[in-house]
Amino acid sequence: MIQHKRQRPNYPRRPRPTFNRGTFFQRKKIGSANALRIMVLGGLEEVGRNMTVLEYGDDIVIIDMGLQFPEEDMPGIDYIIPDITYLKSKAKNIRGVIITHGHYDHIGAISHLIPELGDPPVLTAKLTAGLIKKRHEEFNKTPLKIGVVDPDKDRLRLGKFEVEFFRVNHSIPDSFGVVLHTPVGTVVHTGDFKIDLSPINDKPIDLNRLAQIGGRGVLALMADSTDAEHRGHQISEGEITSSIETIFQQATGRIIVGTFASLINRIQQIISIAEKYNRKVYLDGRSMNANIEIARQLGYLKIKPGTLVEEGDVKRLPDEKIVILGTGAQGEKSAVLKRIANREHKFLSVKPGDSIVFSSSVIPGNERTIQNLKDTFYRQGAKVYHYQMMDIHAGGHAKQEDLKLIIRLLMPKYFIPISANHYMLRIHGELAESVGIPKENIFIAMNGQVMEFVKGDNQKETTGRLTEEKVPTEYIMVDGLGVGDVSNIVLRDRRMMSEDGMFVIIATVKKRGGELIGSPDIISRGFVYMKESKKLIEEARTLVRKICGKKLNTAFDAMELKNKLRDSLGQFLYQRTKRRPMVLPVVIEV
Amino acid sequence: MIQHKRQRPNYPRRPRPTFNRGTFFQRKKIGSANALRIMVLGGLEEVGRNMTVLEYGDDIVIIDMGLQFPEEDMPGIDYIIPDITYLKSKAKNIRGVIITHGHYDHIGAISHLIPELGDPPVLTAKLTAGLIKKRHEEFNKTPLKIGVVDPDKDRLRLGKFEVEFFRVNHSIPDSFGVVLHTPVGTVVHTGDFKIDLSPINDKPIDLNRLAQIGGRGVLALMADSTDAEHRGHQISEGEITSSIETIFQQATGRIIVGTFASLINRIQQIISIAEKYNRKVYLDGRSMNANIEIARQLGYLKIKPGTLVEEGDVKRLPDEKIVILGTGAQGEKSAVLKRIANREHKFLSVKPGDSIVFSSSVIPGNERTIQNLKDTFYRQGAKVYHYQMMDIHAGGHAKQEDLKLIIRLLMPKYFIPISANHYMLRIHGELAESVGIPKENIFIAMNGQVMEFVKGDNQKETTGRLTEEKVPTEYIMVDGLGVGDVSNIVLRDRRMMSEDGMFVIIATVKKRGGELIGSPDIISRGFVYMKESKKLIEEARTLVRKICGKKLNTAFDAMELKNKLRDSLGQFLYQRTKRRPMVLPVVIEV
Repeated sequence: MIQHKRQRPNYPRRPRPTFNRGTFFQRKKIGSANALRIMVLGGLEEVGRNMTVLEYGDDIVIIDMGLQFPEEDMPGIDYIIPDITYLKSKAKNIRGVIITHGHYDHIGAISHLIPELGDPPVLTAKLTAGLIKKRHEEFNKTPLKIGVVDPDKDRLRLGKFEVEFFRVNHSIPDSFGVVLHTPVGTVVHTGDFKIDLSPINDKPIDLNRLAQIGGRGVLALMADSTDAEHRGHQISEGEITSSIETIFQQATGRIIVGTFASLINRIQQIISIAEKYNRKVYLDGRSMNANIEIARQLGYLKIKPGTLVEEGDVKRLPDEKIVILGTGAQGEKSAVLKRIANREHKFLSVKPGDSIVFSSSVIPGNERTIQNLKDTFYRQGAKVYHYQMMDIHAGGHAKQEDLKLIIRLLMPKYFIPISANHYMLRIHGELAESVGIPKENIFIAMNGQVMEFVKGDNQKETTGRLTEEKVPTEYIMVDGLGVGDVSNIVLRDRRMMSEDGMFVIIATVKKRGGELIGSPDIISRGFVYMKESKKLIEEARTLVRKICGKKLNTAFDAMELKNKLRDSLGQFLYQRTKRRPMVLPVVIEV
Repeated sequence: MIQHKRQRPNYPRRPRPTFNRGTFFQRKKIGSANALRIMVLGGLEEVGRNMTVLEYGDDIVIIDMGLQFPEEDMPGIDYIIPDITYLKSKAKNIRGVIITHGHYDHIGAISHLIPELGDPPVLTAKLTAGLIKKRHEEFNKTPLKIGVVDPDKDRLRLGKFEVEFFRVNHSIPDSFGVVLHTPVGTVVHTGDFKIDLSPINDKPIDLNRLAQIGGRGVLALMADSTDAEHRGHQISEGEITSSIETIFQQATGRIIVGTFASLINRIQQIISIAEKYNRKVYLDGRSMNANIEIARQLGYLKIKPGTLVEEGDVKRLPDEKIVILGTGAQGEKSAVLKRIANREHKFLSVKPGDSIVFSSSVIPGNERTIQNLKDTFYRQGAKVYHYQMMDIHAGGHAKQEDLKLIIRLLMPKYFIPISANHYMLRIHGELAESVGIPKENIFIAMNGQVMEFVKGDNQKETTGRLTEEKVPTEYIMVDGLGVGDVSNIVLRDRRMMSEDGMFVIIATVKKRGGELIGSPDIISRGFVYMKESKKLIEEARTLVRKICGKKLNTAFDAMELKNKLRDSLGQFLYQRTKRRPMVLPVVIEV
C-alpha cells in the first residue's frame, strides 16, 4: 500500500482537473519533441481488466480500471486486476483516471488500485460514478475522489492532456468515448460502444460530433474490438422490443427474465413492457436490486409507482400478472436462475406455464452451463426463450460495418484495436486496412507493449511506432481478501488436487533411531472413496510400515524418509489406480 | 464382474445371429400381445454415452455403447459410461449389441460393459469393428466376439428382432442406421447421420432405401437430434473442398491441420488435397496414427505411396512442401496443436508463414480454450483458419431441413428424438410436429424412461406410450483404473480443494490427559503460498496450541478436540482470508 505522505511529497504539483463547461476547446501548442507513450495494461489479450495508460512527460492519464473474470485453469480465483508495477513510482504524475462506463471490466479494479496510486481523481459520468461508489462501499477504504463529468459538454485539462468526451451507445447508460488532445496530436478512445440509432433509455451515439472530431484530424484511434468478428451491423435495442413483446403476448403464466444486473437499458425495456402488459415486476437478487436502486435514484430508470412488488405480492397475484427479473442468464452459480432451477430459491420454483427468458449473450466458456440450465427449466415444464431462437438480446458492441463507419468518420492516421483477444484485434486490424488505414499504421499490440508517438524535426508531422518495450502485465489475482497472494504454485496445487485429490501419510517415529510408533495415519480426500477402498488403504499402510522399518545406512534422517514415502507411495497408488494424488508425507518425531 | 458359468447356465438358449446375406426380408407374424420396451440409457440428456435398449419378452437388442466426456463439475474424471443395472440380471437375454459407427460416444463403453454382460456379440461394420478392436487392446480383457455386417446387404435375426441396416453419411465411413422389425412393428434408429449427396470417401445416404422402408410402414423413428437447433441443410463434405484448396493455394509455408483423429473422411480429404498440391503429409499423435493405420489397412483411406513422411523429412523438406496433420482442434490438453503452441512438442514449433487450420466444430464448453490457442498461434506469427471464417468444416449431423426430410420419407407413427440435450430433443419434437407427426405421438423421454409399444386386441394396430417407469441411469464415472468408484463425495472434495485448497493440522498429544507435545504441524496446499504467509501460519499454530491447552471438562476425547480444531481453524482462516480451505485436523496420541 502506498503511503500518502511518503509517496506524494510534491502533491501541489498535481493540478486539479479544470472543468471548462461549455467553452470551446483551444489546442495548446507545446513545442516539445517529447513522446506520447501509450500502454494498454489489460484488454489486448483477453476480454476484461481494461486499462489504458497515456503518458506525456510528467503527465499520466489512465482510461478505465477493470477486472477480468478468471480463466478456466484458475480455480478458486475471484477475478484478476491489472498489474500497476509501472505506475507505482510514477503515482504522483497521474492527473486523472477516466472511466468510460459502469461495467465491472472497466470499473472493477478501481477500489483495489486507486489507493495504491495515491488516490488520483476518478472522472466519469453520473451513473458510472454511482455504481463505482456503491462498489467501493464494500471495501473498507478511504472514499474515492470522484469528479462527475457531462460527456456532452465538459472539457478537462489533465496536465498536458486536454480531454473531451463523446456519448456512445452500449448496454448501460452514460457510456462515453474519450478524446485526448496531446502535444503530438489527438487520440480517440472509444470505450465499449455500439451504434444504436434507436436506443432504449438513452440518446443515440453522437455521430455528427465524431465526424467533426475527425475533421480536425485524429492521430490515433483506439477502438473496441469485442464484436469485430461479426459481420454486418449490431441490432438496435429498439428492434428487440417487438420480440420481447411477442413473449408477453403469448405467455399465459409467469415470465421469468434472467439478464445481467448491469444491463440497465434492458432492464428498463422489460419494466416498460411489463407496465404496458399490466404485469407487476419482482426484482430478485442483491446486485439487481442495488443497481436498480442507484439507476433509479440518479434518474436513469423510469418506473411507474406500483410496478415493483414484494415477495408477498408474487405469491398473491395471479401468474399472468407477474414478471420476475433476476440475474443468472450465464448460469452463474449463486444467481437467481440457477437457484430457481436447483430448487434452492427461498420461495420461487418453476411451474408448468412459466416462460423463462435468457436475455443476454453467452460469454464464451459458459455455453455448456447455460445449456444444462435451459434443459432443467424445460424438464420442469417451462417454456424457454433464448437469443438463438429470437431477437431478444442485442449485443452492446459494434459489429464490422459499425466499426468501419467509425474509422471512416474519424479518419485516424494510426489505428489501435483494443478490448478483445489477440485474434479479434487482428481481425479488427484487417477491417481498418479495408477502409484505408495503411497496414504499417495499424498497431496490434500486446498487453504492456509501449506505443510511442513523436513529432518530427519540422514539428509538424507526428509519427508513431510500436516499440519492443514492454511494461509488466502479470496476472494479479484476487481471491477472497488476498490480492496477488495466490501464486502459480498455489494454483498448480489446486489443479492437481482437483484432478486426483491428495493423500497424507503421517508416520510417528522415535526421535532416536526412527522406529515407527503405532500405526501410520492416512488421510485422503478427492482420491478414492475411503470407505470403499479399505484394502487399498491397508496396503498403503503396510508399505509405509515396510519403508519405515528399513534400516537406513546412515543415521535417521526425517527428510530422507519423507522423500522415500512420497516416491514409493506415489508409485504404488499410480500402479493401483492410474491416478496421481498429491502425496504428502509427514514424519513426527517424538 | 459377471462370471461366465454362473450367469449363463442356459447359454444354448441364446441364438447366434443368422446372416441371410442378400435374401429378401420376410416379416414374421408373431401373434403375441407382449410389449416392446424401448429404454435409452444414455443420450437423452447429454451429448454422449449413447446406448439404446430394445426388449421384447426374453430378447434384448442393444444399439451403441458410448462414453460421455465429463461435465465441468467433475474434475479428474476421464469419462462417463452408461449404467447397466437394469441389464445385469438379464444379461442372458442380450442377443446382440449393434454399433452404428466408430466414434467414442458410440463405442467407448464397449470394453467396460460387454464383459459385464456375459460377452454378447458385437455387430457392426468393418471399419467400426477395426476401431473397436484397437481400443479393446488397451484393456486387459478377453477378446470381443465381433460380427462384421455389410450394411447394404445383411439381415440378421436376433431373437424376435429381425434387423437390417441402411447406410448413412457422417464424419466417419461405415456409419449406418438400424431397422428393427419387431413383433409389434418396425423401429428405425438413425444412429448419428447427415445427408450428404456429394460425400468424400463415402457413398451417399441411401434415401431410396429409406423411402422403401417408410413405404412398408414404420412404427417408431428414433432420430439424431444433435443439430436440430440449426436451420437449413448441413453442408456437404464436397463443398468444403474448395475452401481447403484455397488455403493450399495461398499458403507459402507449412500447413498445420488440427482435427479429430476420428474424422476419417476429413483426413482423407486433406491428404488428397496435399497430394494434388505436391505436399508431403506428416501424421502427428498416437491416436491419429493408430486410426489412419486401421482405416488404411481396411481400405478406407487412399494414400499414394510416398505421401506420408517421417520426422526427418519434415526437417529436411522446404516448408511449402509440408502438411502436418494432428489432433487438438478442440484445444485438448496433451494434443498436438496445444503442444506445438506451448513449445512442448518434441520437434515442431510455429514459425511465421505457417498456416494453421482448425478443421472441426467447437464442442460447447471449449470455446475459450480454443480462442486462447488461436491467439497463441497468431502471436507466434502464424495465419489461423477456423470454420467461423471459411467453410473448412462440415458438421456430421443433419440440420432441420434434413431432419424433416427423413421424417417425411419414413412417415413413422411415433417419433422419438435422441442423441442430444433435452432442449434439442424438444426442438426436434417441434420439427416432427411441423411435418405432421401428432404431438401425442412424439416421445421426449428422459434417460432410462421406458417407452412401451403393444398391439391392440385386434392384433392390428400397435399403440405406444411413454410410461412413468424409469430404469437406473446413474453416472458411472471412469477415473484411471477405477470404474464407478469416484463417488459424489470424492468429487465434492476435489471441487472444494480446487477452490480454496486444504489445511492439515497435526497435533501430537499425550495419550493420558491430552497434553500437546511439541509444536503442532501444519501442511497446507492450494490455500495461500506458505512461504509468504508465515505470520498467518504462526497465528494458526498459536490458535491450535490454545485449543489443545484448554482443560476439557471431561476426560480427553480426541474426536472432540478434532471437531474443535476444525471449527475454530476454519473460522479463523475464513475471517483472515475470506477463503474456506478444507480443514483436516489429525490428533496423534502417543
